[in-house]
Amino acid sequence: MTELGVVRRKIRRADRAAVEALGRYGVATVHEAMGRLGLMKPTMRPIYPGALVSGTAVTVLLHPGDNWMMHVAAGEIERGDIVVAALIADCTDGFFGDLLATSFRARGAKGLVIDAGVRDVRTLTEMGFPVWSKCVSAKGTVKATLGSVNVPVVCAGALVNPGDAIVADDDGVVVVPAAAAQKTAEAAAAREANEGDKRAKLASGVLGLDMYKMREPLAKAGLKYID
Amino acid sequence: MTELGVVRRKIRRADRAAVEALGRYGVATVHEAMGRLGLMKPTMRPIYPGALVSGTAVTVLLHPGDNWMMHVAAGEIERGDIVVAALIADCTDGFFGDLLATSFRARGAKGLVIDAGVRDVRTLTEMGFPVWSKCVSAKGTVKATLGSVNVPVVCAGALVNPGDAIVADDDGVVVVPAAAAQKTAEAAAAREANEGDKRAKLASGVLGLDMYKMREPLAKAGLKYID
Amino acid sequence: MTELGVVRRKIRRADRAAVEALGRYGVATVHEAMGRLGLMKPTMRPIYPGALVSGTAVTVLLHPGDNWMMHVAAGEIERGDIVVAALIADCTDGFFGDLLATSFRARGAKGLVIDAGVRDVRTLTEMGFPVWSKCVSAKGTVKATLGSVNVPVVCAGALVNPGDAIVADDDGVVVVPAAAAQKTAEAAAAREANEGDKRAKLASGVLGLDMYKMREPLAKAGLKYID
Amino acid sequence: MTELGVVRRKIRRADRAAVEALGRYGVATVHEAMGRLGLMKPTMRPIYPGALVSGTAVTVLLHPGDNWMMHVAAGEIERGDIVVAALIADCTDGFFGDLLATSFRARGAKGLVIDAGVRDVRTLTEMGFPVWSKCVSAKGTVKATLGSVNVPVVCAGALVNPGDAIVADDDGVVVVPAAAAQKTAEAAAAREANEGDKRAKLASGVLGLDMYKMREPLAKAGLKYID
Amino acid sequence: MTELGVVRRKIRRADRAAVEALGRYGVATVHEAMGRLGLMKPTMRPIYPGALVSGTAVTVLLHPGDNWMMHVAAGEIERGDIVVAALIADCTDGFFGDLLATSFRARGAKGLVIDAGVRDVRTLTEMGFPVWSKCVSAKGTVKATLGSVNVPVVCAGALVNPGDAIVADDDGVVVVPAAAAQKTAEAAAAREANEGDKRAKLASGVLGLDMYKMREPLAKAGLKYID
Amino acid sequence: MTELGVVRRKIRRADRAAVEALGRYGVATVHEAMGRLGLMKPTMRPIYPGALVSGTAVTVLLHPGDNWMMHVAAGEIERGDIVVAALIADCTDGFFGDLLATSFRARGAKGLVIDAGVRDVRTLTEMGFPVWSKCVSAKGTVKATLGSVNVPVVCAGALVNPGDAIVADDDGVVVVPAAAAQKTAEAAAAREANEGDKRAKLASGVLGLDMYKMREPLAKAGLKYID
Repeated sequence: MTELGVVRRKIRRADRAAVEALGRYGVATVHEAMGRLGLMKPTMRPIYPGALVSGTAVTVLLHPGDNWMMHVAAGEIERGDIVVAALIADCTDGFFGDLLATSFRARGAKGLVIDAGVRDVRTLTEMGFPVWSKCVSAKGTVKATLGSVNVPVVCAGALVNPGDAIVADDDGVVVVPAAAAQKTAEAAAAREANEGDKRAKLASGVLGLDMYKMREPLAKAGLKYID
Repeated sequence: MTELGVVRRKIRRADRAAVEALGRYGVATVHEAMGRLGLMKPTMRPIYPGALVSGTAVTVLLHPGDNWMMHVAAGEIERGDIVVAALIADCTDGFFGDLLATSFRARGAKGLVIDAGVRDVRTLTEMGFPVWSKCVSAKGTVKATLGSVNVPVVCAGALVNPGDAIVADDDGVVVVPAAAAQKTAEAAAAREANEGDKRAKLASGVLGLDMYKMREPLAKAGLKYID
Repeated sequence: MTELGVVRRKIRRADRAAVEALGRYGVATVHEAMGRLGLMKPTMRPIYPGALVSGTAVTVLLHPGDNWMMHVAAGEIERGDIVVAALIADCTDGFFGDLLATSFRARGAKGLVIDAGVRDVRTLTEMGFPVWSKCVSAKGTVKATLGSVNVPVVCAGALVNPGDAIVADDDGVVVVPAAAAQKTAEAAAAREANEGDKRAKLASGVLGLDMYKMREPLAKAGLKYID
Repeated sequence: MTELGVVRRKIRRADRAAVEALGRYGVATVHEAMGRLGLMKPTMRPIYPGALVSGTAVTVLLHPGDNWMMHVAAGEIERGDIVVAALIADCTDGFFGDLLATSFRARGAKGLVIDAGVRDVRTLTEMGFPVWSKCVSAKGTVKATLGSVNVPVVCAGALVNPGDAIVADDDGVVVVPAAAAQKTAEAAAAREANEGDKRAKLASGVLGLDMYKMREPLAKAGLKYID
Repeated sequence: MTELGVVRRKIRRADRAAVEALGRYGVATVHEAMGRLGLMKPTMRPIYPGALVSGTAVTVLLHPGDNWMMHVAAGEIERGDIVVAALIADCTDGFFGDLLATSFRARGAKGLVIDAGVRDVRTLTEMGFPVWSKCVSAKGTVKATLGSVNVPVVCAGALVNPGDAIVADDDGVVVVPAAAAQKTAEAAAAREANEGDKRAKLASGVLGLDMYKMREPLAKAGLKYID
Repeated sequence: MTELGVVRRKIRRADRAAVEALGRYGVATVHEAMGRLGLMKPTMRPIYPGALVSGTAVTVLLHPGDNWMMHVAAGEIERGDIVVAALIADCTDGFFGDLLATSFRARGAKGLVIDAGVRDVRTLTEMGFPVWSKCVSAKGTVKATLGSVNVPVVCAGALVNPGDAIVADDDGVVVVPAAAAQKTAEAAAAREANEGDKRAKLASGVLGLDMYKMREPLAKAGLKYID
């Protein structure tokens, strides 16, 4: 259960190989492989285009206007983690900038997902430290109130448990429960294996209507073609 | 009249030469040439900067969470079309990705305008397939309920009839009724012919106040200069 | 006091050297140096990434749908100014495009900050004329009703007096009262001098927890580490 | 086609008896009877609860910040009309207050639907003059620029032609094309006749699962009950 | 773990007496008693003022535009439950109206919490069936795709497990994990016992500054009183 | 100038008689009498309908998630004041509830205007203590960081100086600078004297077109009546 004032030190991270495998597919494919679950809201956008990362979640729960726990979270990062920061209530402040990014990177973090604001985006872009956030804001925060690290959090509408696999790219952010990482990676692989063939057919002008055999169900549903 | 479960096969597309001519001006100029009508809401944004396209509308009417009719629409595309997808009610799902883009392009589409979400934006950017959308979302859709193709739709606040000319660029999306395409292209040309001269004057430091002879009407309206 | 139908010609601009100095730091640093005040809302975004400007404010107060006063403002621009346009009530129209940008630049403006829409963004990007705005919209405006120039305005939640120093970059826009420009530039310099050292430590793996001596206050506040 | 600066005097209003009949059903029922089309966005809310009106549309097209055409529209109202006001671009100003309401009522209007703001809501409530709007705002408007009256408009996402039947209640606003009013009223009547029986069954504890025979299709779709 | 196509029949409901006790305090008090956790977003609003209910959660997971699982959920309701409906992706459609309310009530439900739209609000108000929702919309939904019933869901930013205690009033909706219901009810009681005394003091003109002994910490934090 | 950590004890309140006079007119009339300036954004809504108050502003500047200064503000209230609370950055937390309302009322406050959330709205409604806020939220706040009291603030887009006259009703909130209170009250009186006559004419069926002599300027602007 989620509570405040707590740092859980030992978390079960998703299998590293499975997490890396997930990182070979985009968010859209992984989300489909998950059965269309686990996606964060489309309000989460990358600060620069083209990044694709996968990692294991170190979660942080923050108060509006207070980023104290981000520093605590830094101490829990292991190589290959992605920090996932959620808020107790909506806030657009900039909870993260280039100094914290320097620290996170030094500890092994591959990126940050935060349901709030971020700042120093030009420097972060130059560093190639990817962040997915709700907004960009230079607004600084205080360090006064305890949140938690590595408790279950709801981030941008998705439940994230510490250790879950996170995949993020230009399409957004998806969460894969640690226990499902391996199976989801396999499902994603199967999905993608399938796609090259489809793409070639569609590129040659074959219609999805025919390739997916949709004409009959459409007619049955009552679709009428009118000249 | 708009109805569901219908595909209209024969539509009157705007004159091809006029549509191409419109494509030489930006959205702002065409919108002015239209008398400041026909613009979609500024919520419609391109997935990558720099694209400028014009084409004729193949319209699609979709249910929230269901992209079945996008496949039907693919079958109605002719070279030079832009697919315009509207929704019966607001939805941010990703109704379109790289497979559909491959199919649309193979059929001759120049782009997509959709008042909902799109996914696989990195691949779409690499393909150079331009999309104007309300958001980006990896969220997949089902294929279960009939909408319509080539009926009149309201997309992002603008009425679009099948065959209308569509112009889209970094400034947004404008709709030109098929019957008005020629006249609007001429008005846009006239507007632009006029602009080079103005730009040169302004660049030399002449004020719009003087170039447009605004000082007198401003004074008449009561504007006071105070030291 | 703010009133309509007025152009104030003589304004006290912030000290030029101080304004230039502020431009060497990003918005985040200046905002911190200000004591976390003066920031515009994060709805204000640059039309292209990477710009960083500082200048003195020429303020404009506009009616929804009417950009007449932008032309009046052009007449008040001096070299090094940034035009700050506020609205009497929310509006997303495109009040500014490439012609006005040509004029503003010819008069010496370094950029525009507008709590409304802007258009011709591709051309503005090519010109390298930076704009921070609430949105992009091709929607044109009329020239019918008087607003004011160089009166105090509230722009995106921040009070701006004519002559105030404005700093804008990828993180947003901050306003520094003219009288505080020098002191703020010094505080920003002090802040930044301090940062190189911190960055090096964090990059070497030292935690903020230790560098900022947070472990004791965290424990005192009741933070519990659990295995 | 929509244009500016025009007042169409002769419009074909939907059949009065059909419009009155539609007013006996709520918006939800009429919208279903329409095949789930014609609904305005849920941003349209009544200024006070409990109103239910039906009428024929007198349409108005307005510029942001300018309510001049509302006065022109007053001259076109006939007994039983509902004024439907759309904007060329989004605006939250208060385009309508108690004086205009007095005038509209004197001319026979049954209410107002406006995709913008309204003011004097306490007086309007006391008068019992129902308004559906996007917001409430005391912000006044100017009278400077021509829009149009009785042209086709898009209001809150729905196409409205002058003379169309409008039904509005606590659930929102629905538009019924004039030619479809009679047929839609009949379909609504059929729908409602059907509901009393259903309501009684459900009230007695019968499940929709059984009443609508959903158990088989749910099982076929793969629904699993787990203890 | 959350999955689709599943109905869990046996859930552990929070202790009935504890749930009833929670219902004696408002949402604000329960949320404080929870340590400021468990609150849904303020976008969740009651359809009429003055309702205060507590109950145990039957959860439903829905697709945008599809309310099929609401009928399945009806079959799982026991006396004292509150149905909590979450969506896989944002949607404003009206998933619930007076017929479903009749059925829910007949099965023993005390209300509905739904992160989407609701319709027939006038009838629901007359019935006294309370609903907290994101919006009101007459937009109907289809019955085509499987969601789930009684799986963990994220509703308006809060994690809800089937059987959790729900408290809802004019201030919003709070979720109390089933296992914490008793303890939270006690904490709420203690909080409230305390409040009568405070209220009397404040009503007599005593300042919170003195009653809470804030003057010293404020001075220590550096607060300056200036004449 | 605005700064943090400061309480200004001596403020110049607007003339009491003028403030009371302003309270006899609605917000819409006062805003017009002000020359259409001073209005807060329409996001500010009353927690219950029907309230109309005027008073003098005690201003508070708050951090997101922290209501410490509300207690400090209580100590500065004099009979007839309205507390105006602004935030340094957007936040939807509930900064105010029934205990603070009891205290504010005991000190003489007539209401609260806050650009954030409020809670205990049922009790506040029963108390008849009017609040205008951005939202309702049960979310509690901490007491950890200094803001200020009686400094100039920007609240919901409007500049408020301590002592300014505030008028609030169902249409929103308007700010009248203290020095302008008397003049504005007179202008409002003149406006209203004028309205009874207009209302009578309009009620008798006279059109605004004729009463305001708009037909000629409309024709001159090019308005065309078409049969």
